[in-house]
Formats: sequence, C-alpha cells, structure tokens
Amino acid sequence: MFFASDNSGPAHPAILAGLGRENPGYARGYGADDATARVVARLREIFEAPGAAVHLVATGTAANALALATLARPWDAVFCHADSHAEEDECGAPEFFTGGAKLVTLPGADAKIDPEALAVALARTGAMGVHGVQRGPLTLTQATERGTLYSLTEITRLAEIAHSAGSRVHMDGARFANALVALGCTPAEMTWKAGVDALSFGGTKNGCLGVEAVILFDPSLSWEFELRRKRAGHLFSKHRYLAAQMEAYLADGLWLDLASRANAAAARLAAGLAQVPGARLLHPVEANMIFAGWPRAGHARVQAAGAAYYPWPATQAPEGPPEEELTARLVCDWSMEAGEIDRFLALLADAAA
Amino acid sequence: MFFASDNSGPAHPAILAGLGRENPGYARGYGADDATARVVARLREIFEAPGAAVHLVATGTAANALALATLARPWDAVFCHADSHAEEDECGAPEFFTGGAKLVTLPGADAKIDPEALAVALARTGAMGVHGVQRGPLTLTQATERGTLYSLTEITRLAEIAHSAGSRVHMDGARFANALVALGCTPAEMTWKAGVDALSFGGTKNGCLGVEAVILFDPSLSWEFELRRKRAGHLFSKHRYLAAQMEAYLADGLWLDLASRANAAAARLAAGLAQVPGARLLHPVEANMIFAGWPRAGHARVQAAGAAYYPWPATQAPEGPPEEELTARLVCDWSMEAGEIDRFLALLADAAA
Amino acid sequence: MFFASDNSGPAHPAILAGLGRENPGYARGYGADDATARVVARLREIFEAPGAAVHLVATGTAANALALATLARPWDAVFCHADSHAEEDECGAPEFFTGGAKLVTLPGADAKIDPEALAVALARTGAMGVHGVQRGPLTLTQATERGTLYSLTEITRLAEIAHSAGSRVHMDGARFANALVALGCTPAEMTWKAGVDALSFGGTKNGCLGVEAVILFDPSLSWEFELRRKRAGHLFSKHRYLAAQMEAYLADGLWLDLASRANAAAARLAAGLAQVPGARLLHPVEANMIFAGWPRAGHARVQAAGAAYYPWPATQAPEGPPEEELTARLVCDWSMEAGEIDRFLALLADAAA
Amino acid sequence: MFFASDNSGPAHPAILAGLGRENPGYARGYGADDATARVVARLREIFEAPGAAVHLVATGTAANALALATLARPWDAVFCHADSHAEEDECGAPEFFTGGAKLVTLPGADAKIDPEALAVALARTGAMGVHGVQRGPLTLTQATERGTLYSLTEITRLAEIAHSAGSRVHMDGARFANALVALGCTPAEMTWKAGVDALSFGGTKNGCLGVEAVILFDPSLSWEFELRRKRAGHLFSKHRYLAAQMEAYLADGLWLDLASRANAAAARLAAGLAQVPGARLLHPVEANMIFAGWPRAGHARVQAAGAAYYPWPATQAPEGPPEEELTARLVCDWSMEAGEIDRFLALLADAAA
Repeated sequence: MFFASDNSGPAHPAILAGLGRENPGYARGYGADDATARVVARLREIFEAPGAAVHLVATGTAANALALATLARPWDAVFCHADSHAEEDECGAPEFFTGGAKLVTLPGADAKIDPEALAVALARTGAMGVHGVQRGPLTLTQATERGTLYSLTEITRLAEIAHSAGSRVHMDGARFANALVALGCTPAEMTWKAGVDALSFGGTKNGCLGVEAVILFDPSLSWEFELRRKRAGHLFSKHRYLAAQMEAYLADGLWLDLASRANAAAARLAAGLAQVPGARLLHPVEANMIFAGWPRAGHARVQAAGAAYYPWPATQAPEGPPEEELTARLVCDWSMEAGEIDRFLALLADAAA
Repeated sequence: MFFASDNSGPAHPAILAGLGRENPGYARGYGADDATARVVARLREIFEAPGAAVHLVATGTAANALALATLARPWDAVFCHADSHAEEDECGAPEFFTGGAKLVTLPGADAKIDPEALAVALARTGAMGVHGVQRGPLTLTQATERGTLYSLTEITRLAEIAHSAGSRVHMDGARFANALVALGCTPAEMTWKAGVDALSFGGTKNGCLGVEAVILFDPSLSWEFELRRKRAGHLFSKHRYLAAQMEAYLADGLWLDLASRANAAAARLAAGLAQVPGARLLHPVEANMIFAGWPRAGHARVQAAGAAYYPWPATQAPEGPPEEELTARLVCDWSMEAGEIDRFLALLADAAA
Repeated sequence: MFFASDNSGPAHPAILAGLGRENPGYARGYGADDATARVVARLREIFEAPGAAVHLVATGTAANALALATLARPWDAVFCHADSHAEEDECGAPEFFTGGAKLVTLPGADAKIDPEALAVALARTGAMGVHGVQRGPLTLTQATERGTLYSLTEITRLAEIAHSAGSRVHMDGARFANALVALGCTPAEMTWKAGVDALSFGGTKNGCLGVEAVILFDPSLSWEFELRRKRAGHLFSKHRYLAAQMEAYLADGLWLDLASRANAAAARLAAGLAQVPGARLLHPVEANMIFAGWPRAGHARVQAAGAAYYPWPATQAPEGPPEEELTARLVCDWSMEAGEIDRFLALLADAAA
Repeated sequence: MFFASDNSGPAHPAILAGLGRENPGYARGYGADDATARVVARLREIFEAPGAAVHLVATGTAANALALATLARPWDAVFCHADSHAEEDECGAPEFFTGGAKLVTLPGADAKIDPEALAVALARTGAMGVHGVQRGPLTLTQATERGTLYSLTEITRLAEIAHSAGSRVHMDGARFANALVALGCTPAEMTWKAGVDALSFGGTKNGCLGVEAVILFDPSLSWEFELRRKRAGHLFSKHRYLAAQMEAYLADGLWLDLASRANAAAARLAAGLAQVPGARLLHPVEANMIFAGWPRAGHARVQAAGAAYYPWPATQAPEGPPEEELTARLVCDWSMEAGEIDRFLALLADAAA
C-alpha cells in the first residue's frame, strides 16, 4: 500500500538487466559510446524527428532546468502553472540554471494553464520595455502535477499563443508515458506536431533507476545545452549507464507497458474510492495520480495498516476530529499490485462503515 | 503639467550647490572622504541608530537589489507585493543580485501586503523541506507603488509575522520622505522601531540627482554589503559626489520640506479631481501619487494641451470612445506648481462639461 | 590496450549486483531510504568521523562544484593548481555553482601546489580590501591530475597555510582510493587529521557506475549543501541506486582492492616504459596514471594495433617526423589486464628497435 | 602632492556647470531626455561610427562588466592581462555580470598582453571540447594599468589574433583620453579601425563626477546591453545628469585638454624622478601614471610633508631600512599643479642628498 510516490518503486528488471548487458569492456566516456548513439537514434525514430538533438541526464530537475536555461535568457519570464514542478518542487533550480529568470505563475483548473491567463501574462510582460522582465518560454507539464492531461487541442492552443508572442514551448514530461498511453496518440503528436519545442522525456518515475532525455526539436540549441549540462555537472563520464537504462526502457514498448500498468492501477484505485462513503476526488484521474479527500478516521485506519501517501497540501493541520476531511495525494507506479489497492480500499470502506 | 514621474523634475538647487561646495581639492576615493563620514553620522543621528551601517548608491534598483541580496540566500523566497517595484520594474534585478532567489508575490488592497496572505505564504514556504525554496526576507514599500501608506501598526504587524517565521524585513523607501511627512512620525518609528531590518532610503525621486542610502540596522551585514556593492559596480570612486547630494538633502530638513511640497501638490490635484464629473480615484491619495480614471475625452483634452502622465496599467487599449474611462497614474514631484495643477484641472473640468 | 581513461572501464560486477540487491520493493525517495543510512554510517566509520555530513551525488564535477560552492562565497578566490580538474575540465562548473567565484591558479611541480606560491597568493588576495576578491577555500587534488601524490606532510603543510589565512580546505578525491592505498595510510589521516575540511570521495573512476560522496567534516555546512544539491538537480529521487553502488564499493574492502589493481597495472606499465629506448616518464608514477613521451613511430605502431590513449597536452601538433617525441597520458583502471600492458610494451619496444 | 589616484581630484568646473545648465524643468527619465540624445550623436560623430550603440553608466567597473557580459557567455573564457583592472580591482564583477565566466590571465611586459601568449591561450582554450570553457572575448586596457600604451599596430595585431579565433575585442578605456592624446591618433583609429568591438570610454578619472560611455560598434548588441544595465541597477532614472557630464566633457575638446594636462604633469614628474639619485622608473611613462622606486628614506620625507600615493605592490613589507627601495604608484590628474610636482621632487632630491 505504498502510494507515496512513483519514484519509490523498484526499477523494472529489464532495465537492470540492460545495465549488465552494457557493462563489459571499455566504452568511450561522456556520451561517445555506442549505446548512447543507439538511444539517440531510437528516440529520433520514436518522435519522428530525425534532426532533433537528444541528450540524457539523470534527474527530472536537471532535465527541466537545463532545458529552460537553454530557452530563456537571464532577464526573461518563464511562464508556468502555479502548481508546476518547476515552481514548487525544484528549490529554485530554474532560477539557478537560467541565471535569475523569473517564474511567472499562471492559474488554471486541475493544474492546467488557462489559455486566457497565458495570453494576458504575455501581453503584460511585453508592455514594460526595459523595466520589466522579457517574454521567455512557456513550460507546461504533461501529465500535470495533479494527474490530469492536456488534450492535443489544448497543447496546440497554448503553443500557438506562446509562439505568436515569440515564446518557445517546453514540456515537462516527467510522466510523459503515462500521458501518452492515456491519450492514445503518438509522441510526435503530443510534442512537436502540437508546437512543443523542447521536451523533458521522463524515465525515472516509470521504471528506470534515474534517466531522462531532453529532446530539442530545434537542434541549433544542442551545443549550448551540452555546455550547460557539462558545466552543471550533469554530463556522466560513464554515460553508457544512462544510455543502457533508456535503451531497455524503450525496447519492445516497455515504457508504454509500464505506464499503462501504472495508469490502470490508479484507475482501479479511483474507481474504488468513488464507492467509499465520504470520499471524493479533487481532480479527474487521467494518469497515475489521485488527489482525494476522505475523513481522518479512514486515514488513521489505513496508515495504521501501513499505507503510505502524502497529505496534500502539506499545510493541512496534522490533527483533527475523525469525521473531518483530510486531502491526500496517492500515486501508483508500474509495480503497484491490484491486491494492494483492494486491501487499501477495503480498509477505507470498513472505516467509513 | 508634467505628471509622468517624480524622477523627471529638476534637482533642488541646494543639492546642486552641495556638489559645488564639495568639489574643490583632493578627496580620498571609494567612500573614504570626509563628506561620506558626515553623511553616515547624520543618517545614524536621524534614525537614532548609532550602530547602523550606512552605504550610498546611485539608484533605487541598486539599493533594493543589494539590500535584498544581503538578506536572502540564492535558494530563498523573497516575499513582496505583486505590485512592488522589485517585482515589476527592475527587470529581474533581485533575481540577478541574489543569485536566483524567487520572488513570491503577495496580494493586498492598495498595493499593501495583506498580513494573512503573508502568514500563509510563510507557512507554505516552510513546508516543503529541501524541495522548495526557503523562507527569505519580506520587502515592503513605503510609500507604496500606488501612493498609499502603511500605518506604523501595519508595518509592525507585518514585521512581527515575518520575524516569527525567521524572515527579516526590508523596506523599499524610494519615497520614504513622502511617507514620513504624511504619517508625521520619526524615521526610527517607521523603521527599526516597527521591525524593519534594512532600508532603501531614497533621495533621487525627491530632489536629488541620483543617490540612495542603504541603512542596515544589523551592522553585521555591512561588509557583505560592501563587497556586493563593489562587485556590482556600484561603489563610486568619486564617492564625495554621492555624499554631497545626500548631505545637502538632509541639511536643514530640506528632504522633509521637498516631500511635503510633493504631497501637497498631489493632495491639491486629488481634491480637484474629486470635483471633475466622471473622474474617480482608484486608491487613497496618501503621498505624492494619484491613480485615477476619467473619460478619454478628458485625456485627449489635457494631452493636447501638453500634459504628461502614464495610462495605468499600460495594457489598456490605446483607442476607444470618448466617454470610456481610461485610468492613469499621475505623480507630483517637489517642483510641481499649483498653477500647473489648476490649469490641468480646469482643462479636465472643461472637457467634462 | 585501452588507456584512455579510468571512466571507460566496466563497473565491477559486485557493484552491479548491489543495484539488484537493493532493487526490490518500495523505498523512500531523496535519500530517506535505508541503504543511504547504512552508507552514511559506513563512511563515518571508515573516516573515523562520527559527526561528519555525508551526501551522495553521481558525478565528480557535481561533487567538487557543490563542495566548493558550500565553502566559498561568490566574491571569493578559490585557490587551485593550474592543472586541476576544477580549473581545466569542468567547463566553469565552480564558477557556475559558486555564483561567480574566481579560480586563482597556483603553480607547482607534478601538479602539486607549491606551498610558497599558496602563501604568496593568500597574502596578495588579502591586500586589496573591497577591490579584490576575498580569501576563499583551497582545493587540492589527491591523487593529482598528473598521477602524483601529496604526502601527508605536504597536505598538512598546505592546510596549515590555508587555515592560518582563514581559508578552508577541500580535497578533490576523484582518485582517493588510488592515493590511499599508495600511501598506505588511513582515510582519516589523509583528510581531516591533515586539515582537510571537505572531501569529494570518488567512486566512479574506481569501478562504480556513477557515484561520489561529499564528506563535510564540519557538519554545520550540511543543510546548505543539501539545498545546493537539490537546486542543482543533483538530488536523486531514487537515491537507493546511488547508495547501493557505494555500499557495494565499500563492502569487504572492494574499493581498496580495485585501486590496488589499477595502481599495480600503472606500475607495470611504467616499469616497462622505462625499458623502452627513447621513452621517458614526465612525472613520477604514484597512482594509476602515467604521463610519458616516446617517438611518434611508437605511437603509430600501438595505435595501429588498437591502443587508445590521449596525446597530452592536446595542443601538440598532430603530425610530425617519426623520431619526434609525442607526449601522452595513459590511465589504468581496475580491470586493466597484465597481458594488455605487456602487449602494448612489446609493440613499443619493437617500434623502438 | 596628492598622487594617490586620478579619481581623487575635483571635477572640472565646466562639467559641474553642465549639470546646472541641464537641470531646469522636466525631462523624460531613463535616457529618453534630449541631453542623452545629443551625447549619443556626439560620440558617434567623434568615433566616426554613425551606427554604434552608445550607453552611459556611472562607474568604470559597471562599464567593463556590462560590456564583457554582453560579449561573453557564462561558459566562456575572458582573456585579460594579469594586471588588468577587470582581474585585479573589480572584486569579481566580470564573473558576477557574466554569470560565471572565467578570466584567463595573460602575461606581457608593462601590463601589455603578449600576442604570442594570447595566441597560445586561444588555441589551448579551443582544444578541450565540452570539458573546458569556451573562447570568449579579449579585453585590453588602454592606457594600461601600468601607465603604458599599446600602439595602433599592437592593438591591431591583438585584435586580429582574437578575431581569427572567433573572439571579440573589448577595450577598457578608463584612461582612453590619456592614451589618445599621447598617441596623437583619432578615436576611430584607436578603436574600431584597429579591431575593437566594444569600448568602455572613461570620463570619471578625467574630470567628470562619475560617467562612462559604453560604445558598441556592433549595434546588434544594444538591446541586450540595455537589459543587462537595467537589471544591474545601472540605468539612471534622472539620466540627464549622466548626459550633462558627458556633454560638457566632450564640448570644445575639454576631454582632450584635461588628458593632456594630466599626461604633462606625469611627464614632468617622471623627468624629475630621473634626476633623483637612487630613483628608477619601473615602466615607461606614457600616460598619466608613474611606477617608480626609490629608497625608503625618500618616502619617509615626502610622506611626512603630506604627499599621498600608494606603495605598489601593496604586499611590500611596510617597514625596512632607509636605504632599501620601496616601489610606488603615482598618478597625476588634470588638476595637478606643476608647483606640487616640483615641491615633491625637491623633497626627494633633498632626502637623497
């Protein structure tokens, strides 16, 4: 009953095996190895983007911050949702990597940026001349930090608004695969065909040990990205171990399979919660995360039984009467078993009875 | 009829004369001159703060950004009003000087920070552990960017909330004198006695050519400030010319007299506007700035006659029907003459008739 | 005959096995897992430093740059050898992480800092008041970038000079184990007992996939380090995979055994080169790296046979007469086999004959 | 007998008068005033560069650091003389403004960069791929920090070496006028015609209160410069007071006249020193600075009589036997009187007798 995070589950055995397969013998360092070349080629193929620049890093924060720094100048505004990872969970990494850009937060239901708010912010940012920060990139998160999805139409519209103002578009795809299988579209459709200029393509949360790809659909940014990555200590000397993970992740559709499993687990959990008296969902459940509330009595029951998840937001008072609602985030990773979900739901139902 | 800004009027002749008085002969550079020593002593006296560190710079943005950088670490949140100068008008200077701190904007009527919003933001900032930016300083603006004032009680309350969360308090006093004479209190009462830890004490907008003092009531920050100032190119070699301005500004209460004149001009303008049919004030007029709206027909009339001021906000559509309201900012500096105000009001009244 | 780098060899199988052993089930993210706790405890034990702060990252550049940024303020000088990794091979990472500190390079034979030069630089740095950068940390590399070693006496002397000037001491220990087994001392003797305040303890070059520990013997720096690590995207969510590597690396003295193998291989290679007519060593061979020169004819012969290593320095003219000396760097990792070395030497001897 | 610095003398009365002349009435802020427009036009005329971008700031460090930041990316090397102001006297300002570029110091007699050393450094910097910092701008100082001059041929040669490696050229012209009148060439000849891409054109040391112009001969850099200036707090709101200084400085050749006076004073001093037994010049005296050594007995005598100047370098032992040489820097500003020089020389001669 471990719903705390999709970075707490195990790596998939096939990915561990990939490390072992790539291990023997010598290999050129810093990305000049064969496995890296194969991964770059494979991602270009998957994204139908033969000219794209592809670079690997080990963490999602590195992927996002390096991509944004490559798109933004130090005096730019970076437009993001108020509930985005870049704004909330990276301890100021975008500000650090960009040399002090300003994150301008935008509202929008279900952690999805409201297009009107984006248009207003872009117009406003352009109206101050030298006195205000300048128009920089838009970053949107797919799947969002609330487990919801932008439709292709919605991505396209946001990208159009950004592009018409001269801003480029970054997608934080830490849960890219979860979104992709839920939408049932192609990687190209969810990215460059919809107007995305740069992508953080996540592997870590979906069964890898620690690897993300940054895909720059405008390859003219590639060398700057490489210098920024090196300078930030994110260029791995033994790069083959990043590549080996990513290669195994992409092989035989494993990445899609793992995401489907996680999404299915979340759907099962959401469907079950809908049956628990007093429980409610705070956002549509469209990927592998659930935000829900139910009485503290239920929380006490499942946590006593060993369930793990986070109260959300964290600022809720820790104590309160048993009938008072507490809201929480629950995340399912690829390894979540149906039995665990059912046990959790049974405990909750029992507490509610 | 020049209401565009209080940085557009002339320097007061006594301040220019101060430059000439300090000019002859050799003087040690970089602040080791006698005039600087006198100014430091005088400001300590005025602020009843014999141990305070006092440093001069030439611009308000430098004063604010250097002070905030001395109070904030790169991974901190800096709490400010959404309409503050630091957020809106410094092209990201606080982010640059701090090494990438995050400005967290707070709401509040009349450009004054809402204490509840501050408390919530501080609590929320402290709840994310290593993942979120940390609690850094609060900066508040007195007089505010909308020409309003915090009462001493209000400053004290905000400072208490900040201090109880471990945050220090900076005051952007670009229009410090305007606020002081309006409140009728002492400099000490409006600053350290109310909990302010560092102050940007403005001279430029109130009759100087270009000089601001940063007063650090905690002198242990002084050496770091000096290094930051030098490193930012804000340590003047011929420092006596900053000191000479400030000395003349403070002599014989000139600074208070100039602020009183500017405030009185704004009051006259506000009182007159209240008589103009169709005009309304957007905020209380408590210092030397007026935010008001009236029909475009009136705007056309006064601008044709040479009046200068800014539509506010700048994002308003430039064209529209004559009866449609347009809102604007009008600022009175120390040199604004009653006759100019009356002529402006007469034109407006005529257009409204 | 792959002597290009010690980051090109395979990971040791026991370290890969460690990943698999730690993989099953859920584990708290971001370093709150059990394996991390065990590694921290083990490193404290190995270093006889029960209070030290221990943090893991994935690359040596990250370890160095984060450690230096924690020791230096943005306006500081960082004292390093002109041939150090921090100066030469990190694309400005120390400057980036510190917010613009200045690397002051020092001379010294065999890539070892000359104590007199350090003393002069420290004195000079302190003589400029606010105009010059201030005294910041010393960083020294053990083993050095030329494969030589500081004796314990030499480390102690440099640290004393630094400490007496108020500077702290960082050791870049990317090849810490190689130095340790060569000197035959304890980890404590080579670090805090000799005056080292912070250590980058390398694992990557010595058989791991990618893991380094930063050990702060002054634990009051720990929280700042953690914030800097997170903000730089170097806090791994699935932190157990860093810890698992390090745990296997430290188990049963594996780390010392691997370093001994690499050093022995380099000694064998150096001894053989001494017998090759026309070849000479540029520096004493004290760890696992060799810098040597021999005629281009020999280079042509071994490279035609598949040997890999770097001309050093890289700025040598690529072409030249067969009898002209070309200098090169050769590195032995833990997996280098005696047969490969002997084959290489035989080819060289043959070419020289 | 005040030879401590050319930033210690008075401003020229005509420049103070310029402030008064420009003071009355309202003027648009932030450089949109008429005086600024006139100054920009005048500098373009003087430099025969009708398309150049011209921007004013108040300090030399700001001019240099902003110009270099506009020419260099954060991961670049900035090539400068080891004795340059940017390296020695700006507390790391170039590193701060560039976001962490690395100053690569070059040797050369008399504080002039050795062309061979530049060529080697450029070649070396380009040989490291992503691991090393990249080739960024060259900055040279005219007149140098040791009071010497680059000939036009020397500037041209350095610029050619830089340009052929893809590096642009900045000139620190804090004492531009002193160099110009000494060389007897035109401003265009000493800058863009010799290959200079960006210039810090000094006013402060030559009779102004505090104003420098940055001239970008490639105007495509202008907007970035403006954003950097604003963001650094160096855009003056009451910009007319910068412009008024510069306008008066340029009027009727005042700037050239003041520099000639300073140079002539230095020449008189140097000629006199050559007659003092035991005294010697350390560098050719080509502008307004003298570096010389003579016995401590002479120092004691003139300092007792009130002479002011700096021992140079500052690290010399403060005490010593009377016959031991102490070296010093002496600077003459425009206001230095012949009588003062002669009095100084007489005292020295007397001490030496």
